[in-house]
Amino acid sequence: MTPESLRQIADRVRRGHTTALSVAEEAIRRHDASDLGAYIVFDADGARTQARAIDAAVARGEDPGPLAGLTVSVKDLYGVDGLPIRAGTRRELPAEWRREGFLVRAMRQLGAVIVGKTHTVELAFGGVGLNPNTGTPVNPWDAGEHRAPGGSSAGAGVSLWEGSALIALGSDTGGSVRIPASATGVVGHRHTTGRWPTSGVVPLSTTLDTVGLLTRTATDSRYVFGLVDVLAGNASEPDRAAGASGATAAPAGDPGHPATTVAGLRIGLPRSGLWNRAAPDIAAAVRRALDELVAAGAHLFEVDAPELEEAGERYLAGELVQPERFESLERDLPGWTPILDPTVGKRLESARDVSAVDYVAVLRARRRLSKSIHATIEARNIDLLATPTLPITPPPLSALSQLDVYRAVNRDMLSGTGPASMLDMCAVSLPAGLDEHGIPVGLQLIGPSGGDYLLLERACAVESVLGTAAERLGTPPRLTASR
Amino acid sequence: MTPESLRQIADRVRRGHTTALSVAEEAIRRHDASDLGAYIVFDADGARTQARAIDAAVARGEDPGPLAGLTVSVKDLYGVDGLPIRAGTRRELPAEWRREGFLVRAMRQLGAVIVGKTHTVELAFGGVGLNPNTGTPVNPWDAGEHRAPGGSSAGAGVSLWEGSALIALGSDTGGSVRIPASATGVVGHRHTTGRWPTSGVVPLSTTLDTVGLLTRTATDSRYVFGLVDVLAGNASEPDRAAGASGATAAPAGDPGHPATTVAGLRIGLPRSGLWNRAAPDIAAAVRRALDELVAAGAHLFEVDAPELEEAGERYLAGELVQPERFESLERDLPGWTPILDPTVGKRLESARDVSAVDYVAVLRARRRLSKSIHATIEARNIDLLATPTLPITPPPLSALSQLDVYRAVNRDMLSGTGPASMLDMCAVSLPAGLDEHGIPVGLQLIGPSGGDYLLLERACAVESVLGTAAERLGTPPRLTASR
Repeated sequence: MTPESLRQIADRVRRGHTTALSVAEEAIRRHDASDLGAYIVFDADGARTQARAIDAAVARGEDPGPLAGLTVSVKDLYGVDGLPIRAGTRRELPAEWRREGFLVRAMRQLGAVIVGKTHTVELAFGGVGLNPNTGTPVNPWDAGEHRAPGGSSAGAGVSLWEGSALIALGSDTGGSVRIPASATGVVGHRHTTGRWPTSGVVPLSTTLDTVGLLTRTATDSRYVFGLVDVLAGNASEPDRAAGASGATAAPAGDPGHPATTVAGLRIGLPRSGLWNRAAPDIAAAVRRALDELVAAGAHLFEVDAPELEEAGERYLAGELVQPERFESLERDLPGWTPILDPTVGKRLESARDVSAVDYVAVLRARRRLSKSIHATIEARNIDLLATPTLPITPPPLSALSQLDVYRAVNRDMLSGTGPASMLDMCAVSLPAGLDEHGIPVGLQLIGPSGGDYLLLERACAVESVLGTAAERLGTPPRLTASR
Repeated sequence: MTPESLRQIADRVRRGHTTALSVAEEAIRRHDASDLGAYIVFDADGARTQARAIDAAVARGEDPGPLAGLTVSVKDLYGVDGLPIRAGTRRELPAEWRREGFLVRAMRQLGAVIVGKTHTVELAFGGVGLNPNTGTPVNPWDAGEHRAPGGSSAGAGVSLWEGSALIALGSDTGGSVRIPASATGVVGHRHTTGRWPTSGVVPLSTTLDTVGLLTRTATDSRYVFGLVDVLAGNASEPDRAAGASGATAAPAGDPGHPATTVAGLRIGLPRSGLWNRAAPDIAAAVRRALDELVAAGAHLFEVDAPELEEAGERYLAGELVQPERFESLERDLPGWTPILDPTVGKRLESARDVSAVDYVAVLRARRRLSKSIHATIEARNIDLLATPTLPITPPPLSALSQLDVYRAVNRDMLSGTGPASMLDMCAVSLPAGLDEHGIPVGLQLIGPSGGDYLLLERACAVESVLGTAAERLGTPPRLTASR
């Protein structure tokens, strides 16, 4: 069954039909009943205090905002006033890192309630979701084994299924929002690089970092995105893709806009390793979802997009992110390098060997490849590119004890999402189905640079055909008992 | 005596009071009478053809544009249709480099006449103006010795004094417009990085390259800048410094705006090596010019601006420009590295040793220093920072036969202008006087990022006090006979 939308819940709070406190208490109850370990810090008292303030505002006749009372889990890469921050490392970061930046402040301004901080891969440098320092959240889709939740926003998707949060803040450099969304069966959107400020978040890559959010449905993602985007100072949709199809973009948060449908939507399937490398059951699950879209009137066609391949290889080669990671670590967190877990620290050892000439060449290649793929999108009149978000099933932790195996799996986990980051595009992962292990499979929809509203509109249209995660996937085995 | 302004000359051509052909013939006559060697290619026939087309347009009742008939010399780093390009190297570049980019096309669109291509330092990588491959223009201010004209736009200032051009196109990465302007006694403006496209110009640094122009007066610079800036798609003056003083910016090309005066102008003198390192006679000449501004009502005060020092050191350390230079050379001009002159090639040998981590750190330092200096400018209510453009007299070529001496001089020549480039500011060099060798001394006025119109307005006000180059400096000894 479809969950009540975020807009509906917030509206009930704003009108006094329910209280923010009761929404918070439900989240606290769900958290307390769960053993999934999504959080490094859960702040039940703080959530109650925030909720009471919102209810008091309503009682005074004030509007607490369009996210009134909605519970939010925050990746431990973000500063949150009054809560400690470790960014997944063994040691608490200096107090200045607790300072709140743009996205947390935006949540508060819109009336949301911060419930706590979710586990992250150490310094967000990895896609599997493992954290040997602070803990690895349990993927709720495997009833038996402790399976990886995807990362680096490792606790984000888990918090949504658990019900301890209705919105999960993550961050996406090479896929860290989309990967856990795919692995846990929720919706995750990476906006176009630079669209929202990344202030108040421990940096990974100055070039590719983005903040962003995971939600239970595409409709919710679109709702929250529109509200935050206005606070980021963006005008509503100067979308270069707007002319590409009949679909028109809606202004931010406009409830009365005509819905985009999938009828006539032009979806390109890149002829590239993103499909070839995917496990057969994963490719089949994504393909089945796409076939349902075709049945609903979408056009599906193959496109040559070698840019995705080259962009992915260049991302994984590490010549862009590793030096940026290393430079900011040395500068922002001197003394942290020696205490890093080998899963992270080992990969930084070669960062010093990348030459500036090669780094400049990667940046140039990025511009060239981005220009080229956008030319293809325009020439072929493509609304969306579609790929599996992940080519492999997130493995059980027991399979990852060897460092070399971990590193190979980590590369696989990032290989589907890195290309859109490198190509300066925007992308969303939606639940497409379950693979042969019963683990969710993500459908990644990629749109052109700057076309975030249109991408989310189209994701909503796709969701209206495929159903929401709850409708399409059911309930995760680990949570069946607690519901 | 003040030369007739570019606007006045163009107006006479537009009204048919004179012909573009007669303007071109005068330039050709001046070129033919000169032995200063400003050009690698002078295209008298092409200039005549362009001029005749303009005259024909006037005869048809059409307006050939606000630069009608004005002669333009183009640095040999630019592509010009039909003319060869070497970019100062030993070999002609492939034909695709002849293609015209933004600034040359803008000149044509506005009615100007391209007369030829001036010598550049090889690949623009040096500030002295030396070119052992294609020739080093003669600085007209030394009657006896062949003295360096400043670079890398080595023929630009020479072409203006010679009278073979009324506008000279140069390019400025770390000072290559301002340095030759200072060394030859003309006006050179480096606009804020990124303000105009650098298309059609052999790249040096993707981060710091700018195109730009040299003229005989600040009034001319302001006139041409306003016209080109509109073609670059910039709105007239969204100037963050606009509120800093009573002076207001004029819209582009507006002839009726009230003139800015120096009365009340707040000029900061940085307490830094830019002044301390300058030769005493050079510092004294610049200081005398500033005292004249004070007599006319300007406020002069010292400011702590350590950012200029650090920015200059970081520029000269080469960790930003050298890898970018090397990368684009390898990519754009494979095979060129072995044929470079040692004055350029030797300096690239260490480019490969710069690590990406250090490169990322330089970019970060640049952002930090720029933010800091702009905060000082705002806090101290500074309209302009003033320094000598060059700390030393451009030497005679006979003093530069040793590579290590050349390299030390080259560093000195770039040390005054590099900081503004690194700090993302705009700057202009105006003639301040002559040094004890009788060589022009430049006054560098530096304005905040994006404040180009206001900077040029203020430069015009300064010029109205100091006089134009011709008024203040007289005629160069090498040209006295030919006038």
